[in-house]
Amino acid sequence: MTIPWNRRYAQRMQGVSSSVIRELLKLTQQPDIISFAGGLPAPEIFPVAKFETAAMRVLQEHGAQALQYSPTEGYPPLRQLIADKMRRYGIDATPDNVLITSGSQQALDLIGKVMVNPGDQILTESPTYLGALQAWKAYQAEFVTAPIDANGLCIGDLFEEALRAGPKFMYILPNFQNPSGVTLSMERRLKLVQIADQYGIPIIEDDPYGDLRFEGEHLPPLLALDWQLQASRREAKNGDGLTFGDVIYLGTFSKTLAPGLRLGWIMAPTAVIKKCVTAKQGADLHTSSLTQMIGYEVARDGFLEEHQQVIRRVYRERRDIMLAAMEKYFPPGVQWTHPQGGLFLWVTLPEGLEATAVLEKAIANKVAFVPGTAFYPHDNQGRNTGRFNFSNANPEQIETGIRRLGAVLAKATSALESGPTLELA
Amino acid sequence: MTIPWNRRYAQRMQGVSSSVIRELLKLTQQPDIISFAGGLPAPEIFPVAKFETAAMRVLQEHGAQALQYSPTEGYPPLRQLIADKMRRYGIDATPDNVLITSGSQQALDLIGKVMVNPGDQILTESPTYLGALQAWKAYQAEFVTAPIDANGLCIGDLFEEALRAGPKFMYILPNFQNPSGVTLSMERRLKLVQIADQYGIPIIEDDPYGDLRFEGEHLPPLLALDWQLQASRREAKNGDGLTFGDVIYLGTFSKTLAPGLRLGWIMAPTAVIKKCVTAKQGADLHTSSLTQMIGYEVARDGFLEEHQQVIRRVYRERRDIMLAAMEKYFPPGVQWTHPQGGLFLWVTLPEGLEATAVLEKAIANKVAFVPGTAFYPHDNQGRNTGRFNFSNANPEQIETGIRRLGAVLAKATSALESGPTLELA
Repeated sequence: MTIPWNRRYAQRMQGVSSSVIRELLKLTQQPDIISFAGGLPAPEIFPVAKFETAAMRVLQEHGAQALQYSPTEGYPPLRQLIADKMRRYGIDATPDNVLITSGSQQALDLIGKVMVNPGDQILTESPTYLGALQAWKAYQAEFVTAPIDANGLCIGDLFEEALRAGPKFMYILPNFQNPSGVTLSMERRLKLVQIADQYGIPIIEDDPYGDLRFEGEHLPPLLALDWQLQASRREAKNGDGLTFGDVIYLGTFSKTLAPGLRLGWIMAPTAVIKKCVTAKQGADLHTSSLTQMIGYEVARDGFLEEHQQVIRRVYRERRDIMLAAMEKYFPPGVQWTHPQGGLFLWVTLPEGLEATAVLEKAIANKVAFVPGTAFYPHDNQGRNTGRFNFSNANPEQIETGIRRLGAVLAKATSALESGPTLELA
Repeated sequence: MTIPWNRRYAQRMQGVSSSVIRELLKLTQQPDIISFAGGLPAPEIFPVAKFETAAMRVLQEHGAQALQYSPTEGYPPLRQLIADKMRRYGIDATPDNVLITSGSQQALDLIGKVMVNPGDQILTESPTYLGALQAWKAYQAEFVTAPIDANGLCIGDLFEEALRAGPKFMYILPNFQNPSGVTLSMERRLKLVQIADQYGIPIIEDDPYGDLRFEGEHLPPLLALDWQLQASRREAKNGDGLTFGDVIYLGTFSKTLAPGLRLGWIMAPTAVIKKCVTAKQGADLHTSSLTQMIGYEVARDGFLEEHQQVIRRVYRERRDIMLAAMEKYFPPGVQWTHPQGGLFLWVTLPEGLEATAVLEKAIANKVAFVPGTAFYPHDNQGRNTGRFNFSNANPEQIETGIRRLGAVLAKATSALESGPTLELA
């Protein structure tokens, strides 16, 4: 008796489809395509020599430990390093507030597993990181959204309306947001933690790019602002002892060291960490002992901060080249964001121009980006938008790729002006 | 407004508690305890030098690739190596039938995510691997069980009754089962794949220890027997082309190379692999590129098979020492299994003796094991049983630890005989 496998799958998988990005990554493996589609760091500045030294040191001095099972919570020195990193914001974080995850993607999965019942609402920015949507759709979450502008999340009527839907939590990328590249202003950060506290809605703060600011003033994470809010309240009550409030902070080494390690972390109240540890036991027992120890060995003694300077310099140059090339080659009516850091910028095409149709032509012309629709939780939004990555391609490729796209867009926009049907041929 | 975190957790986490094994592993970190509790390989035979060479080679020759994002499916040469490994059973497996997972535990999690609806029944051996129970409880699975004896799963009335409960799948560890150490006989393997086919119930075959047989004849995996069954049926129908049937096979390098890598795999029909890939994208994007490439570099060119010989020799010696020590020190009325491979054996105490109470006394005497109740999906079963690991402690520690336990058990059994109350003091 043979029952087809597709009749055996769980209901939760019905809403989950293979990520557009991952499918596009396959396309970009064609060697002659210039791809702005992925979210890949620049491989030529990976500190490979440093990794060689670190790997040798870890294996020679702690080989048995690096190859053995290890605690689910993570490698203690790495947890300490992360706690120390966050203490610069005046947060009294300890290693007990840190869970090492198999990349930040696992942090999103664990948050979903621990907190989301089927049908629960999650409030996201619109657009938002599609990996989060994918992770949480598997727990049958629903989504309510609030718009963003050049200063990040708009904390206006639409946002308050979304809050009144009673979301389980809100998901915010405050720095150089994926996909838009915009950054939440200081004024809005303060307002956001206050309003989240007022409604009693936790914030999941996802901050993969915060250390990659090229210009302007570094802004404190929401976690730190919430901590200050809790502190002032305790003082007013003459309370003693501080605790974390309602912000869970997600960090990663994928953009500052190397994504191939799969090292991220959750910083949260110890009770939440414990719950996530239980979930992680069932998910993968623990993150690789070897990559945790190598990652720690590379990051320690200030190398992480030192290396971030290299990344910032290189990505800033690439962003500038992309912005200049867009200015030069893109036809009038096309707009784009000017991110102050990170890996991405966001392009808005003239109304009526379909980014997916443009992508098809683009691929035929050996250049790629991600159509914006992938980053919206609901269908048929942002059809004239796209995400462009500027970290992975080198300066020459960026210039060439944007020039090619400029030609595709020029044809498309003139076709758009000349008639109601979109004919790109 | 502060809402306590414990009112925000998802319902699915209510049935999931932190694993007894993981909590016990913490206990065993006390340096003077001899622990038979964990499932840890012998660290002194990790091929550390081989890992050093492999890590250097991977970083020097393919550094950028090893540190970069990589496809969710896994590192192609590693998938090929695994497909080749399974082809020795006459299965026409290709890399497309293989998904690399972050340890075998992630395979269990992905299977749960992809296949289990809340309330779905899963048929397990009783006792069974507790990590599987933990993974699937998070998807709100229910469990039906069938007993095992010295020849593995009993395929009798109780088993057929469990099948008639209509389980989503059955979960079988055919070789040197965790926790019992017993192996499913050839006769029962053949019967099992036939009956599974007859009822149309898929088998999840978990085989972490199959390559660690010390004595007796190596038996083919259920996957291979099911393949033969499908093949004979196709021949009868004059059909062409073979496909996988209803067995999903889980493997791992944790017991044959090193658990600290977190490298496991799922072998399944391509449609199932694709579904699991989608789930894995949301779970952790992909398994560490670095550990996959290092793992492949170590395993290739026959080293895996060569190293397994070392492991088998060492574990066989340790098993023999544990069996001899039990014979020597354990009081009459205590029974234990004689595994032909793997890492574990199973002890049954006289009826009425509580393994948990014995463990407390044991820890006071600086020796530990896992009470058997942890390995049953339902409460209050196997209260007089325990799992003993013989791979991690060295020969001297095994002798000493079993002697200490013998003394504890002698007191306990004589107390049991002298009266109805269990007084171990």
